[in-house]
Amino acid sequence: MDRRSGLPVVGMVGAGQLARMTHQAAIGLGQSLRILAADADESAALVGADVVLGDHTSYADLQRFAEGCDVLTWDHEHVAREHIRRLAAEGRTTLPGADALCFAQDKLRMRERVESLGIAVPQWAAVSTAEEVGSFADKHGWPVVLKVITGGYDGRGVWVVPDLAAAEPALRRGIPLLAEEHVAMTRELAAVVARSPYGQVAVWPVVETVQRDGICVEVLAPAPGLEEATALAAQRLAIRLATELDVVGVLAVELFATGDGVLVNELAMRPHNSAHWTIEGSRTSQFEQHLRAVLDYPLGDTRMTAPAVAMANVLGGREDGPGIDERLHHLMARWPGAKVHLYGKQVRPGRKIGHVTVLGVDADEVRATASAAAAHLAGTRAAP
Amino acid sequence: MDRRSGLPVVGMVGAGQLARMTHQAAIGLGQSLRILAADADESAALVGADVVLGDHTSYADLQRFAEGCDVLTWDHEHVAREHIRRLAAEGRTTLPGADALCFAQDKLRMRERVESLGIAVPQWAAVSTAEEVGSFADKHGWPVVLKVITGGYDGRGVWVVPDLAAAEPALRRGIPLLAEEHVAMTRELAAVVARSPYGQVAVWPVVETVQRDGICVEVLAPAPGLEEATALAAQRLAIRLATELDVVGVLAVELFATGDGVLVNELAMRPHNSAHWTIEGSRTSQFEQHLRAVLDYPLGDTRMTAPAVAMANVLGGREDGPGIDERLHHLMARWPGAKVHLYGKQVRPGRKIGHVTVLGVDADEVRATASAAAAHLAGTRAAP
Repeated sequence: MDRRSGLPVVGMVGAGQLARMTHQAAIGLGQSLRILAADADESAALVGADVVLGDHTSYADLQRFAEGCDVLTWDHEHVAREHIRRLAAEGRTTLPGADALCFAQDKLRMRERVESLGIAVPQWAAVSTAEEVGSFADKHGWPVVLKVITGGYDGRGVWVVPDLAAAEPALRRGIPLLAEEHVAMTRELAAVVARSPYGQVAVWPVVETVQRDGICVEVLAPAPGLEEATALAAQRLAIRLATELDVVGVLAVELFATGDGVLVNELAMRPHNSAHWTIEGSRTSQFEQHLRAVLDYPLGDTRMTAPAVAMANVLGGREDGPGIDERLHHLMARWPGAKVHLYGKQVRPGRKIGHVTVLGVDADEVRATASAAAAHLAGTRAAP
Repeated sequence: MDRRSGLPVVGMVGAGQLARMTHQAAIGLGQSLRILAADADESAALVGADVVLGDHTSYADLQRFAEGCDVLTWDHEHVAREHIRRLAAEGRTTLPGADALCFAQDKLRMRERVESLGIAVPQWAAVSTAEEVGSFADKHGWPVVLKVITGGYDGRGVWVVPDLAAAEPALRRGIPLLAEEHVAMTRELAAVVARSPYGQVAVWPVVETVQRDGICVEVLAPAPGLEEATALAAQRLAIRLATELDVVGVLAVELFATGDGVLVNELAMRPHNSAHWTIEGSRTSQFEQHLRAVLDYPLGDTRMTAPAVAMANVLGGREDGPGIDERLHHLMARWPGAKVHLYGKQVRPGRKIGHVTVLGVDADEVRATASAAAAHLAGTRAAP
């Protein structure tokens, strides 16, 4: 409890853009997010007032960071569960807890657990050898999707292999992998929910996530043309997973849409790229909601603020040509309603340096605008 | 220019809630507001990453603060114009500049200037003695409104005096005062506009500001039942003032509505309480817009995000009873759509410690909700 404000102190481990945007939301709630950063130049450390430098892999650093925090929460999935368990054993409130995070950190355990709940996932097997990959392909066909079991993100640690020879580089790493059928999907969706320790849940409309090279490039809210029954089923599935896995905070459920319904692809237990649109597009943003949830405050209204919202990631992009300031200037002149979020990151090809959100009434129009604005900011498209 | 981000650095002198909310908006633009604070416990200093401690009345402190800032702007009206002129003479960009700020700092000069533009203000005169007050009252009747010429705010430095005897305490201060007719107004309005150095202007819908004891308690957007012609005239007036006075940034024009049209009451050249509703209620908040303006970026879309928006100030309030954390908890349970903004200030009777904004379709309903939620947070009304 902060004696001055009379409000509890939330500490977030990790200082990426999620912590940055969580701090932005925390300000409204009378808070100042405490942030554990590896480096003073990290995205959230550049804007936060209460930054502790330390290493999230060091238990001593986590312990020092936890001093004076009423709740600990996470900007990423990379904090070791044994550390989180030890913090909890020492009386710290860790939300989501290690038993829940397990299913966001370990793709094998997640699939076992989700299947045990009768929820569909793509066909999968743990594989370590070419023989095992071959026998998986015999059953489920080529291509096979190989994934690292822990630590992959944004397309890293994922290989779509058309034959056994192509699987070699992934297998050569000598670590167990997850083999998954290559799902004949129609598109990808995400159902994002928040849950409080009290057990309250609040879910946003189901969105479509558009991927390119394994990286999310656009999010369309609500998912255009989605049948109401499928949307409702996906929302219920997310609520059920949050409840069964005892998640506290935001849970993003990435889904494959197929002719037969949805399959669970991945889980994230933190604010997630698929809900960045909620900052302007929903009465309660995922960042505010995550804070409300971990503080065990009642959750906020998740209604949309416009009929159609599109978010496009700024994947920077060109380092030559006009600088970011000039690009931003032109973007604002061309699209006065576009909402820009820059993460304070230096431009590097393919790096997510920000996002743009556009609100409106026509799904195609907001998508085209968000996409053009983001590409413009990335310098990957000429000014219109 | 920040070498890392490639973006210009904005420095704001003053660390109140306006700087706090400006920092919140700055984060989205890839910025981190540089803040000059008198004390590390001030509202904005609690949440900003780039806080310089210093005294805004000291030129040396201002000069030191200005180092590395591309633009200097103001959280309040209390920076001496001679300091601002000297900073400008040394090559600093000061926005708004001293020549504009003059009309926000000095109530006499403002009235002279506004009248010279043919824009109506209440009848006024400079007074120093009881005789002068008496002769003003002979012309314009009692009560007379006395105001300090510089430095008043939130009802401080304003006296509504029914007779000469009541004027004594104000006159005893021995400083020149402004005497003003007590306008028979129907209500108070505000027209808020932003202007960039390039000369672009963008105006928000005209709002009604509801005052109690000289303090703004509620803001209703748009002003309920305002005739379109009056709204348009007020917006044009604000644009004309911003242009004629060469304001850069946000200009709030406080207006008295009378049977005959509007009279200019006060000017503020910074984000203003009458536009806090824009954070959620407009596509572009006044805080983002102020930054865009002082950065000479193109201005953002000022359309509303809902048909009716109400903002109520949290005037704290009771120090006994449930603490702020418990009040917040209950508020969220009762009004899941209410947007809370707490300024990190300690509760003191009558002190503005935050505000609540409610969006909806019915003006009466959003007003009642915002007002009830704010009173609940202040502890001045029992939980519903």
